[in-house]
Amino acid sequence: MKIGILGLGLIGGSLGYDLRSQGHYVLGVSRRDSTCQRAIALGSIDEASCNLSLLAAADIVFICTPIGLIVPQFKQLINHLSAATIVTDVGSVKAPIVKALAPLWENFVGGHPMAGTTDSGIEAAQRNLFVGRPYVLTPDATTPTTAIAILEEIVRSLGANIYYCQPEQHDRAVSWISHLPVMVSGSLIAACMGETDPQVLQLAKNLASTGFRDTSRVGGGNPELGVMMAQYNRQALLRSLQQYRHNLDEFINLIEQENWAALEQKFQSNQKVRPEFVE
Amino acid sequence: MKIGILGLGLIGGSLGYDLRSQGHYVLGVSRRDSTCQRAIALGSIDEASCNLSLLAAADIVFICTPIGLIVPQFKQLINHLSAATIVTDVGSVKAPIVKALAPLWENFVGGHPMAGTTDSGIEAAQRNLFVGRPYVLTPDATTPTTAIAILEEIVRSLGANIYYCQPEQHDRAVSWISHLPVMVSGSLIAACMGETDPQVLQLAKNLASTGFRDTSRVGGGNPELGVMMAQYNRQALLRSLQQYRHNLDEFINLIEQENWAALEQKFQSNQKVRPEFVE
Repeated sequence: MKIGILGLGLIGGSLGYDLRSQGHYVLGVSRRDSTCQRAIALGSIDEASCNLSLLAAADIVFICTPIGLIVPQFKQLINHLSAATIVTDVGSVKAPIVKALAPLWENFVGGHPMAGTTDSGIEAAQRNLFVGRPYVLTPDATTPTTAIAILEEIVRSLGANIYYCQPEQHDRAVSWISHLPVMVSGSLIAACMGETDPQVLQLAKNLASTGFRDTSRVGGGNPELGVMMAQYNRQALLRSLQQYRHNLDEFINLIEQENWAALEQKFQSNQKVRPEFVE
Repeated sequence: MKIGILGLGLIGGSLGYDLRSQGHYVLGVSRRDSTCQRAIALGSIDEASCNLSLLAAADIVFICTPIGLIVPQFKQLINHLSAATIVTDVGSVKAPIVKALAPLWENFVGGHPMAGTTDSGIEAAQRNLFVGRPYVLTPDATTPTTAIAILEEIVRSLGANIYYCQPEQHDRAVSWISHLPVMVSGSLIAACMGETDPQVLQLAKNLASTGFRDTSRVGGGNPELGVMMAQYNRQALLRSLQQYRHNLDEFINLIEQENWAALEQKFQSNQKVRPEFVE
């Protein structure tokens, strides 16, 4: 199969490696010619261009640009495609993208491979990035079953675990387990910096260990990524933040009231349910 | 030197290993005879008893019981000691302990080795647990300098990094980097469980990855430990929690107002300061 990849970063580049090793012929498009050349040299793609017209030959196209570029790039891309071409994206928020693109292209299926590293760009791309990782697909009732079946077969060949859901369900789920943690963790670092005694602040920095390291990790990461989550998943994230604030207030109230039995029960419940999320 | 250890768990047992390897003679006291026998068999201590009178021969005693037992055990212990004996504790909160014990014993120096594992008990004890880890000492203006010097030399021999501060400064610092993260992380797990759509909740569990794993880790840990932090460091923790709530509200407001520039600035500041706490 001829497979197009628009956007040769971590996800696009990694897809290229795996799809080529499955015997597909991979066409890559990047805005920068240097990225095109590098992707070919690394063996991530077979053929490259800065021009979207290269993708006219593709049976299926993965849009792997930063999330803000998915919709505008898609609108240019479809001028070059035949109606039978399947288009999918890898954006980390689904409702706004599906809402914008599904009405424009019958063979569009929203997708989100939940794989990544802290690095980005073609140099960070790696083989087998998707093995054992979740890959969400969000077709709607009007999506042709053939398009879904073809995409599913390709995703399965990456070794990913496929989940089907509505775009809104995806966005609410990731607001809980991905976007809310970033805001919670970011508020922790910001709060510590509010300590007014410089000696205590310095001592806190000296004593910080694994507990602080883990809880503050995602809140001290890539600023653009944090803003992107809030921007594109604003509604679901605000809902999660309000629920979080409510739970935080409950913790504060229990501590103010010295209700240690109820506080212990909360921690016991946390300890019991956490393994249902992560090992 | 003859060194006594009261409480043969992770910290007491690990101290025993290192102090014996420094050539000290280590006397251990535990409430359980089986723990005494096990600590000797493992080579953590030289001599053991369930009776506090064993510690009468010690030049210095480390109280390594759970935090709630430090004050009552100390009050029994000093009946057996000569006035020259130095006493220190390893409790993770310092102000209430120092306030209770310093007036009762001239040669008392509060301490807190910031080392640990998720396991507990004598079986979890290990050699070199304190190497490169912070060890806080909280003497006051009336503490004899000889007692401080002797304790400092022993702590230094463990390979720990020593920090001196007031008990209240210690408690405020650990409320930021140890106790607040537990409440922040605990509220995250509790908030997620508030999702009312069972399909979204199940999807969130399926999609949870490293971000959720790290941010939720300390909030899904030992319930007794979480309650203990709140109970013994209540005042400093509440102060940190109020500051945290204020910062959380700022994040929420920026997202509500779609003030992406200010939100990005917050994340940029976080990314910049976090390495001052942890690598």
